[in-house]
Amino acid sequence: MASENAFSDGCAWVEGEYVPISEARVPILDTGFVRSDLTYDVAAVWRGRFFRLDDHLDRLWRGCERLRMTPPATREEVRAIMIETVRRSGLQDAYVEVVVTRGVPGAGERDPRRLTPRLYAYAIPYVWLVNPDMQDQGGADIIVARTTRRIPPGAVDPTVKNFHWGDLVRGLYEAYDRGAWLPVLTDGDGLVTEGPGFNVFALVDGALKTPERGVLLGITRKTAMEIAESLDVPVHVGDLPVSDLYRAEEIFLTSTAGGVMPVASLDGVPVGDSKVGSLTSRIRDRYWDLHSDPALSFAVDYGEASDRVGTASVRSTV
Amino acid sequence: MASENAFSDGCAWVEGEYVPISEARVPILDTGFVRSDLTYDVAAVWRGRFFRLDDHLDRLWRGCERLRMTPPATREEVRAIMIETVRRSGLQDAYVEVVVTRGVPGAGERDPRRLTPRLYAYAIPYVWLVNPDMQDQGGADIIVARTTRRIPPGAVDPTVKNFHWGDLVRGLYEAYDRGAWLPVLTDGDGLVTEGPGFNVFALVDGALKTPERGVLLGITRKTAMEIAESLDVPVHVGDLPVSDLYRAEEIFLTSTAGGVMPVASLDGVPVGDSKVGSLTSRIRDRYWDLHSDPALSFAVDYGEASDRVGTASVRSTV
Repeated sequence: MASENAFSDGCAWVEGEYVPISEARVPILDTGFVRSDLTYDVAAVWRGRFFRLDDHLDRLWRGCERLRMTPPATREEVRAIMIETVRRSGLQDAYVEVVVTRGVPGAGERDPRRLTPRLYAYAIPYVWLVNPDMQDQGGADIIVARTTRRIPPGAVDPTVKNFHWGDLVRGLYEAYDRGAWLPVLTDGDGLVTEGPGFNVFALVDGALKTPERGVLLGITRKTAMEIAESLDVPVHVGDLPVSDLYRAEEIFLTSTAGGVMPVASLDGVPVGDSKVGSLTSRIRDRYWDLHSDPALSFAVDYGEASDRVGTASVRSTV
Repeated sequence: MASENAFSDGCAWVEGEYVPISEARVPILDTGFVRSDLTYDVAAVWRGRFFRLDDHLDRLWRGCERLRMTPPATREEVRAIMIETVRRSGLQDAYVEVVVTRGVPGAGERDPRRLTPRLYAYAIPYVWLVNPDMQDQGGADIIVARTTRRIPPGAVDPTVKNFHWGDLVRGLYEAYDRGAWLPVLTDGDGLVTEGPGFNVFALVDGALKTPERGVLLGITRKTAMEIAESLDVPVHVGDLPVSDLYRAEEIFLTSTAGGVMPVASLDGVPVGDSKVGSLTSRIRDRYWDLHSDPALSFAVDYGEASDRVGTASVRSTV
């Protein structure tokens, strides 16, 4: 039976209006499209609760500052818009994205300083980079990409979350070509960086290692580190040589889109016994438990729209 | 007096329809937006004539192949759409862009192989990276960027024209901060690459030098090389060390958005006598003359839409 809620496949906030996700459009001349000149963030809603939303907003604001963009809405307004997209969709498990672009130039305008940033947001059903069944059965088969290296931080700062995915998509095709599910990219100098949408952790000699440089400072990465520390497992944030990855006892990937995701094999060779490692398993379980912790999450009120969330209260970005 | 032509500010072809540029929108979930997973090209119309359109289409098709995307229309259809956007706009001098994106995923879909590419095109008034007055008065003040390096070809192939402009925009802000107009980026190892939307040429020891690696294979670059050869000026395509740029007698930039553009100063120091160099001047004049050459250009028929250009003849990409 078809849902009567037009937003049940997702709800977007674009150009000052809430619209069904299938109708959500971005101006073709927005430099967010024609220059990928933007930053964004994604927060998750799980069982009706937003997880670490303030951490995501902190990162978005820092990204805008680094790009020298002034967001076209206040932090409280952006927060309210994100919640409202979820409320309207009715989604209990959602992937909630917010994008700030440099804006739409007038005729002949090439100077990014003269543009007014725009804000877009949407909630869609929760996204899994590695689906739960695959996670339960040991995790993803991954490769170290040979055809492509990660864009270096001296070119594009990976701590400012961005859509420069050319290298990541090329790596993804290589993974498929080699019969795997996901690639991990190096920095071109023998160090692991990250993959399409996730950070990487390796359990090596009893300690968890994760790259420090050339990667997004993931919120799920941060959560996994906090959990590991609470379990008295040492965490080393620094260089992660590819050679360490090959001798890791356990490997897992972290992302808001899928959580703490076990790795079953690397370049066709099983990691550990190719079942979910015991440390990975403990961190993963704890990660999902935290989604109901009031210190890190809050419930979405799916009732009527509250007064403070009206479209009119947010100045238009049209 | 307002124009009665709704397309006079520009005409776009999106989702199977011709629309005024101000109404042209792209689905927010198109991976062309949320992954910058696309290639594109830009051809110019000058005084009612398309210049080297087939070269641009060759490059677009090659880019799609490299990205493993099948364009959703034939080459003849894309050609007809580009011409029709210009015809409807009535623009005599136009910047005509065509974009092929990976497409819009269904719910939960993360596999780029399962998407159907989409096509977008638009014609807007001709764009100048360096406006004609500035060109006449000696050209642009440029810098060699120190804050950012160009994305390396091992990460993202610059010969597949793309919107990964994070490094280029960062360089642009540095240029503004240093009182200049445009930046040139290095490869991080002392070699010149390119700048935001243009290739670089330097006249050094009586020969023109332009970088071979890490750059777009520009159509204007190609045209400038052909002109130089016709003038018996040797052209060396290879490494262009930054040190050569500092001792160049003349420097010019090439782009479909502005043509052959003189450089007046580098890092605040005049290039030559800071007037337009004589070789630059000759190449620039010849470049514009070629826009009326029937071997490289053809006239747009601004009359009624021809039968072959109807929307219905191109299968919808919706």
